[in-house]
Amino acid sequence: MIIIGEKINGAIPSVAKAIQERNADWIRDLAIRQTAGRADYIDVCSSVVEGDVEVLHWLIDLVQEVSDAKICIDSPNAHSIVEAMPFCNKPGLINSVSLEGDKIDTVFPAIADTDWEVVALLCDNNKIPDGIDDRIAIFEKIMERAEEFKIAPSRIHIDPLVFSVGTKPDAFTNFAAVTRYVKEKCPDIHVTSGLSNISFGLPSRKTINQSFLVLAMAAGMDSAIIDPTSRDMLGAIYSTEALLEIDEFCIEYIDAYGDDLFGKQKK
Amino acid sequence: MIIIGEKINGAIPSVAKAIQERNADWIRDLAIRQTAGRADYIDVCSSVVEGDVEVLHWLIDLVQEVSDAKICIDSPNAHSIVEAMPFCNKPGLINSVSLEGDKIDTVFPAIADTDWEVVALLCDNNKIPDGIDDRIAIFEKIMERAEEFKIAPSRIHIDPLVFSVGTKPDAFTNFAAVTRYVKEKCPDIHVTSGLSNISFGLPSRKTINQSFLVLAMAAGMDSAIIDPTSRDMLGAIYSTEALLEIDEFCIEYIDAYGDDLFGKQKK
Repeated sequence: MIIIGEKINGAIPSVAKAIQERNADWIRDLAIRQTAGRADYIDVCSSVVEGDVEVLHWLIDLVQEVSDAKICIDSPNAHSIVEAMPFCNKPGLINSVSLEGDKIDTVFPAIADTDWEVVALLCDNNKIPDGIDDRIAIFEKIMERAEEFKIAPSRIHIDPLVFSVGTKPDAFTNFAAVTRYVKEKCPDIHVTSGLSNISFGLPSRKTINQSFLVLAMAAGMDSAIIDPTSRDMLGAIYSTEALLEIDEFCIEYIDAYGDDLFGKQKK
Repeated sequence: MIIIGEKINGAIPSVAKAIQERNADWIRDLAIRQTAGRADYIDVCSSVVEGDVEVLHWLIDLVQEVSDAKICIDSPNAHSIVEAMPFCNKPGLINSVSLEGDKIDTVFPAIADTDWEVVALLCDNNKIPDGIDDRIAIFEKIMERAEEFKIAPSRIHIDPLVFSVGTKPDAFTNFAAVTRYVKEKCPDIHVTSGLSNISFGLPSRKTINQSFLVLAMAAGMDSAIIDPTSRDMLGAIYSTEALLEIDEFCIEYIDAYGDDLFGKQKK
């Protein structure tokens, strides 16, 4: 499972405050704790419009001071992302492109001959699609564009988009159908999700998020944008990998438990 | 989801002590708390060889004093079970038969013309089968015997048996395959599990049990022998039912949350 740590995001009020006050220790601490939770990538998102690139630069430097995890550059502005790429000391992940506006035309040329990876959301300029067929149609178009720029499927993390199960009962069913289609079509591709939207508007959101994670992994999701400091989420990931035969004989599960990443806290 | 509460079992040391001391309050409290956790059935198991029926009688009376849940009579001795049936004030569940010894010949005639239900384990007099085909072969034989006694599939809870994922990496995969086969063959049948064996020998067993429950429900398991006082297990059940479209618009999920059955404790 590829873990993308979501905690350094200016949309979170405490992080917005840390960014505003340039509280470097706060950001470093978030990077250190997510790295301890075995994040493969640490997402950095400024959530500011003015000075997006400058804030991304500051955040990326701080993360790289304390962590060997790769950077996931996150911005609604594809141009900010491309400008921030040189701040990273190794290829990371771009979050995200879609068929909206000029995102692909901005990002794909910039990563064409690199080892950078990219999250691709299954949406376009029209409304956000909640069916299976409309999302698959967008997937096919994104893959055509990727081929044009010789971006291998193994560098792409498809995010099928998640709707709240409180308003759309088939939210998981459709997500799973799209995931299975995508993985069958391109076994090397990754399927990811910023999954917490599944529980939007419902009580005890973590309860639903955790079950969704388990079910989505069974459908083929192999990457997720989550909080790697959550013991419950890590426990769900490691146990599900054991149950799905990804982690045979529970080697990784036992190792992660030994490192006190989930279950009853040891210290 | 059909919940069978597992807590009144003499194999649990505190319950063995309560049985030995005839501590009626202890047993009543276990019944009350499992009923609050929405147990459909309350399993009663003496775990004594001498005086099994007398202890079952005492346990059944206590449970029925404080709970409207149905009784699940649990004994390795099929004759004890049949003797205990008249102590129940309404038809319940028998735990369990299999192709071992004279279990079916003892139990099936006793429930033939009743509304009693029965748990049927997929094992026989040979070794406990861990493959898919050998378990399916036993399933077919059990269903032949059920037909002989006109026991409808809707009265049968098939337990495909669970092995530890620590020693058998395909423990869940095989369980799921058998479950899917059984549900496809007989859509009205129930599939159940005393699932905790999945984590035998591993640390943080609850972590694995919870993910197994979610994955098994997705495979078609619709009954489980669990601890209904576990907030994590109830949260997993209600959230998974919402995600699998069994509980559309999360009506049951929200109701159970309102009754403080899972999530952060309110009181």
